[in-house]
Amino acid sequence: MNPYALLNVDEARRRIDSLRINLPLDTETIFTSLAVGRILAEDVESPADTPKEPLAAMDGYAVRSSDTRAGAKLRLKTRGPLHPGDAVPVDTGDPLPPGADAVVRREAARAEDGFTYVSAPVSKWENVFLPGEFVAKGYRLGSRGDVITPYTAALMLQAGIRRVSVYRIKSVVMPVGSELAHPESLVNGGRIDYIGPMVEGLLRGWSEARLLPPVSDSREELEEAVNRALDMADILVTVGGSSVGRRDSLKAVIAGIGRLVVPGFGASVVKRGGLAVVREKLVAMLPGGCVSAAVSLHETLFRALKAVTGKPLLRSLTIPLAEDLRLERRMPSAVLFRMVDGGVEPLEWGVALCRELAKADAYAILQPGVYGKGSLVNAIMLKKPA
Amino acid sequence: MNPYALLNVDEARRRIDSLRINLPLDTETIFTSLAVGRILAEDVESPADTPKEPLAAMDGYAVRSSDTRAGAKLRLKTRGPLHPGDAVPVDTGDPLPPGADAVVRREAARAEDGFTYVSAPVSKWENVFLPGEFVAKGYRLGSRGDVITPYTAALMLQAGIRRVSVYRIKSVVMPVGSELAHPESLVNGGRIDYIGPMVEGLLRGWSEARLLPPVSDSREELEEAVNRALDMADILVTVGGSSVGRRDSLKAVIAGIGRLVVPGFGASVVKRGGLAVVREKLVAMLPGGCVSAAVSLHETLFRALKAVTGKPLLRSLTIPLAEDLRLERRMPSAVLFRMVDGGVEPLEWGVALCRELAKADAYAILQPGVYGKGSLVNAIMLKKPA
Repeated sequence: MNPYALLNVDEARRRIDSLRINLPLDTETIFTSLAVGRILAEDVESPADTPKEPLAAMDGYAVRSSDTRAGAKLRLKTRGPLHPGDAVPVDTGDPLPPGADAVVRREAARAEDGFTYVSAPVSKWENVFLPGEFVAKGYRLGSRGDVITPYTAALMLQAGIRRVSVYRIKSVVMPVGSELAHPESLVNGGRIDYIGPMVEGLLRGWSEARLLPPVSDSREELEEAVNRALDMADILVTVGGSSVGRRDSLKAVIAGIGRLVVPGFGASVVKRGGLAVVREKLVAMLPGGCVSAAVSLHETLFRALKAVTGKPLLRSLTIPLAEDLRLERRMPSAVLFRMVDGGVEPLEWGVALCRELAKADAYAILQPGVYGKGSLVNAIMLKKPA
Repeated sequence: MNPYALLNVDEARRRIDSLRINLPLDTETIFTSLAVGRILAEDVESPADTPKEPLAAMDGYAVRSSDTRAGAKLRLKTRGPLHPGDAVPVDTGDPLPPGADAVVRREAARAEDGFTYVSAPVSKWENVFLPGEFVAKGYRLGSRGDVITPYTAALMLQAGIRRVSVYRIKSVVMPVGSELAHPESLVNGGRIDYIGPMVEGLLRGWSEARLLPPVSDSREELEEAVNRALDMADILVTVGGSSVGRRDSLKAVIAGIGRLVVPGFGASVVKRGGLAVVREKLVAMLPGGCVSAAVSLHETLFRALKAVTGKPLLRSLTIPLAEDLRLERRMPSAVLFRMVDGGVEPLEWGVALCRELAKADAYAILQPGVYGKGSLVNAIMLKKPA
């Protein structure tokens, strides 16, 4: 394939969505409480009903519901089992003592001299968490490819899953261009690589990401650098060097040692983005502008992750435009959006406008034309790790 | 104040929004590229126009626009300055050589024998990034209290900001209850603390968060534990022990050594959440259920951060309901929502339903009543760090 061919966006997405590669990722079993941000390497189901037994859902008194009526006087005991006329103080989350089938809220009873006086009757299982109410046995708590959030970690722990298997993915970010300076360089000179740290930030957590110092754009050095990077990583993300400029030989190099899945996209801003498979590993090639790089990263790597973890790292929503949008370019174009009251608002267009990207929540790749306020847009959410 | 009083939600929010405390946070200056996820301790403005000089916005040839017309033949030079009839090859991002005022795209020219033939004229500054086009001098790149994202880090680096001052915030999460087991305990027994790791996951990144093993709920031990935690942290988040149960003495303890800003909220699910200031430090008290704890964390600590970093850690959007919602409880109630095509969809209600929280994107605290599809809801986005 011509390393500079631009594929129609739908065709490019289809190719990536249907990509199959044989990349055996390492996995590790770690505490669920330490797995936030990692990608699940297994489907996880609830091993049992949770809770296993009825629990008090309120602070108050465990009772037999048939004993309660307004003014009922129940004998206070410190523990079960309950006999007719008994009540046992319980706090939220306590297992219900044997014999009890409801809880009278503390505010709906008055304790005095070893008795409690109930102000209103409760029905069977009132103020009780029933077995399986949180999750039933077999409930799917998480699926292979899911990024674990603090909330899903809590869900798995609630169901008793203390350890999970997660992927151990190694990724490197390799800026291409002799004119670039690493952002942590303490000496002056060179143009600061500001895309590399952005990409590293978007890979960190779910992968062990490492930003490399910029590499030269000479063909020989580039080929060696790519091979060395792939010796140590499952995923390589290059930044720059992928255009048609004099120094841009990256795609030719990649085409020589691997297979270009998508050499480029037929859409402004992501035109020079691309995806390749080299030695059964993923190589995402990003253009050197803020907006181009961020959108390309989503359209290439985040989409292609499906081939290795089972799920893309993308989420899209159909949202109405909060104002009119006029796209006058000849090509389809990626447009950034910010979520506002009532929908999404288009942001200013420009490949290198970090300032617009910094305000954005989502993007869409749209055909030229005029879109009125209220038109529905299929917006892909920009990953936000922090 | 009665440690179990429930404040009207608007009043509670007003108190927290207007809270003033004198908590001098540590700051540190770090590489911008390493600051993703941290909170800015300063306002950052662009020190100069970016770019500083005109740059090529395309791969091609730097030219004098007045020299170009269809078929024009220009002399190729390797560098500037340009004299009439000259052209210099440039790649995207290269500074324009002196004398040039436009770029002819590579695809719109043909190079041959030391000359380039232009297929169409370009106008002045066509295909050029002008000084200040990315950001103008003085542009506000970030504000005190902002969480730095990969995108805002790229923006600051693009403007030449290699180092930033960020807060160094120490937080501890302290589960309360002798019945609880630390989620990383390797021995059986006790109810796994599943809220602590969720909260730790939501504090990590912007603060140095540490989940402590559960502490006893006896009044004396609790008071000592709170004091020790505050010796080493700026922020203390307790989980559980804040209800009206027999073992719940936390709020009384806190009222004794500090000041309860909000002892409780007049709304289901967050009723037992609260916020206090002890020794000029923030103490957020969360109830022990998934949903209660997550919503309370947002309503207490994330809202109160404004008093220490200048900004709350909350974002809200007005979004239409994607389906009808009927709230039949007597009290206002926190409802979880998931974003779907066309708006937000209410999720199943329940204080301890981790499974619903795991699907949620946002919540709102709503008055009882019937809300038709399309009604606007002020949804507060749930923090998602991963």
